Amino acid sequence: MAIIVQKFGGTSVGNLERIANVARRVARCHDEGNKVVVVVSAMAGETDRLIDMAKSIKNPPNEREMDVLISTGEQVSIALLAITLDAMGYKARSYCGWQIPIATDRAFTAARVTDVGAEQVLKDLNDGYIVIVAGFQGVDPDGNITTLGRGGSDTSAVAVAAGLKADLCEIYTDVDGVYTTDPNITNKARKLHRIGHEEMLEMASAGAKVLHIRAVELAMNHRVRLVVRSSFNDNEGTLVTEENALMEKEIVSGVTCNIKEAKVTIAGLKDQPGVAAQVFSALADAHIVVDMIVQNVSADGITDITFTIPQADLVKTLELCEKVKEPLGARAVFGSDDIAKVSIIGAGMRSHSGVAARMFSTLAQEGINIEMIATSEIKISCVIKKKYAELAVRALHDAFGLDKVG
Amino acid sequence: MAIIVQKFGGTSVGNLERIANVARRVARCHDEGNKVVVVVSAMAGETDRLIDMAKSIKNPPNEREMDVLISTGEQVSIALLAITLDAMGYKARSYCGWQIPIATDRAFTAARVTDVGAEQVLKDLNDGYIVIVAGFQGVDPDGNITTLGRGGSDTSAVAVAAGLKADLCEIYTDVDGVYTTDPNITNKARKLHRIGHEEMLEMASAGAKVLHIRAVELAMNHRVRLVVRSSFNDNEGTLVTEENALMEKEIVSGVTCNIKEAKVTIAGLKDQPGVAAQVFSALADAHIVVDMIVQNVSADGITDITFTIPQADLVKTLELCEKVKEPLGARAVFGSDDIAKVSIIGAGMRSHSGVAARMFSTLAQEGINIEMIATSEIKISCVIKKKYAELAVRALHDAFGLDKVG
Repeated sequence: MAIIVQKFGGTSVGNLERIANVARRVARCHDEGNKVVVVVSAMAGETDRLIDMAKSIKNPPNEREMDVLISTGEQVSIALLAITLDAMGYKARSYCGWQIPIATDRAFTAARVTDVGAEQVLKDLNDGYIVIVAGFQGVDPDGNITTLGRGGSDTSAVAVAAGLKADLCEIYTDVDGVYTTDPNITNKARKLHRIGHEEMLEMASAGAKVLHIRAVELAMNHRVRLVVRSSFNDNEGTLVTEENALMEKEIVSGVTCNIKEAKVTIAGLKDQPGVAAQVFSALADAHIVVDMIVQNVSADGITDITFTIPQADLVKTLELCEKVKEPLGARAVFGSDDIAKVSIIGAGMRSHSGVAARMFSTLAQEGINIEMIATSEIKISCVIKKKYAELAVRALHDAFGLDKVG
Repeated sequence: MAIIVQKFGGTSVGNLERIANVARRVARCHDEGNKVVVVVSAMAGETDRLIDMAKSIKNPPNEREMDVLISTGEQVSIALLAITLDAMGYKARSYCGWQIPIATDRAFTAARVTDVGAEQVLKDLNDGYIVIVAGFQGVDPDGNITTLGRGGSDTSAVAVAAGLKADLCEIYTDVDGVYTTDPNITNKARKLHRIGHEEMLEMASAGAKVLHIRAVELAMNHRVRLVVRSSFNDNEGTLVTEENALMEKEIVSGVTCNIKEAKVTIAGLKDQPGVAAQVFSALADAHIVVDMIVQNVSADGITDITFTIPQADLVKTLELCEKVKEPLGARAVFGSDDIAKVSIIGAGMRSHSGVAARMFSTLAQEGINIEMIATSEIKISCVIKKKYAELAVRALHDAFGLDKVG
């Protein structure tokens, strides 16, 4: 008997009717002879309702108490699903994070899972129970309730699957799987049957919202077989798996686009050790997450650094950079939020030359100027003007033949 | 520094504005140099909302899961109160039942408290924290979430006060304290400054809704000093205390009235051992709670038993009694919900003769027929026709001079 972890998000459990749909799907998997563990999020809108209530008292609210508050959303979901399965004649038991336990560190509102207890769940599964686990929440070493940050239920599901050494972890969502690009941008977007962990990770960090980044990291590190599929139909979904399990690597698996970043340039910096550290330490202290960083070869001991950050942090970042400008002897600080980051991702890039060249020439043919370039082993990202974002995605999707089954 | 436990019900924390009022009251008590522990209920209406949702799936829902569901109501309240106190600049920490822990037996939806952990709370109090505890909920020996039944937050508060050996347990509610009778029935009703535990217990079981019966029992057994007072003003409230701490016992402390019971008579029973046991075992198996039981001296080995039960259980009780009628050789079974139980309560009755006589003659003067009588050491209850209920309460309140300060 296989152990299967199924995760359902907030939209899938948004009302009692949808919870009944989830229950039928879970029951079917159980009837097929599997041991089923279900991880659920809060009903859609509930977490926001609780956050708004807390913020109307104080913004930001006390973080420890915030976690006590918002973890109730998932607790309601697990109970309602268990009551529904019980009403259908199935044996079901729900567990909060502290009961499993899903052990985390002490970082309230953004905790990381350190360990997952398997004993009670395995006992229940052997006794014929469907086990239901609250996503998004855990318990710290002092017995305080913690939560894993927005989208954390994906991480809960993978952590539970890893802890149980489950055969499969299915992430049910409102899309059919992982696509070569956003189907809203081009109708040529094609669902991938398989994608490697690292590719998925780059896709997620480059802006594809289908899976939480930390969930992919965890799946990669613990070799969890992960499937992304729709909770509204029976389509096959996308298998996220180890790279070397892929028979034939596609050169490029997907094109992503992120229009929610801004870029900042510090110009005329002295090119000497410790300069970059001073800039990015100041940003880290202000909890500003930096994405791309580009620094070019220096001419005459003077260099420019350009980096991207979330748009919402642009004003704050410019202020901070103005403060360090003088001590660092920089010439100027400027920024813009009129940018889009377009990325192509594919494990096959490693062994195929010319991928970058084809990307740059494709953009050039469309008359799109490239403002920044950053590369990893399996990803190339270009920052361009925001107005060209969709044009670039469609052109690259065509250029790499992503509409054709690989 | 005194340890004070303050309990606030659902109405007192019904919205964010009221939670802020509670926070100010708690903060004031803390500023006065006390160590304060706060026990709160779910926001008014929240528990009913959750129950309705569960019952719309299945009625009755699975009890274990019901407790997982409805315990979220108090968890929301403790977090919001802690966030509010933190926003006011106070150190506050909230705890769910399992965190204290408030240990209970395994009776889901109606669990009894077996033990309360004091260690963490005392440590927090010594560190200057205001400690906030979720009422109504606990944890069973297997680590499952339990709830204590409706009104259980009173019990939580007294249990916490007992566990901490607190100097005082204040129950904040929407009335000023314990009254000689329901102020809605007679404007002569007077607030009592003090009442004995046993009297309070009889008042509660006779229909006064100001305190949960089990909370009073627990206070009596653990010698907890209990005060009932309003969360909407600074009036003094009523001290519920040990009987022998009362300087002068009032003969009668209060008059109560319960119009939510029904009576059932099994007529022509054989007066032999085991007959009553068979009747009441059948009722107990059906979870029907019997209040008064009256059996008169038998004539010719034949007797009648009359008892009272909640009105909602009348039909079921009559059916059960019809079933045992034949095996017991009873003549007839009949019942009525057109009754009111009027009670006078007072520890002073013990040493004062003539109290019963005065009660009966008062009712007689008003032309009210008495259908059943039951007495305890400190209570006399009479069942009368429902239409006379308010008249009887007013007449008895006058007859025992309850409007005069004792």
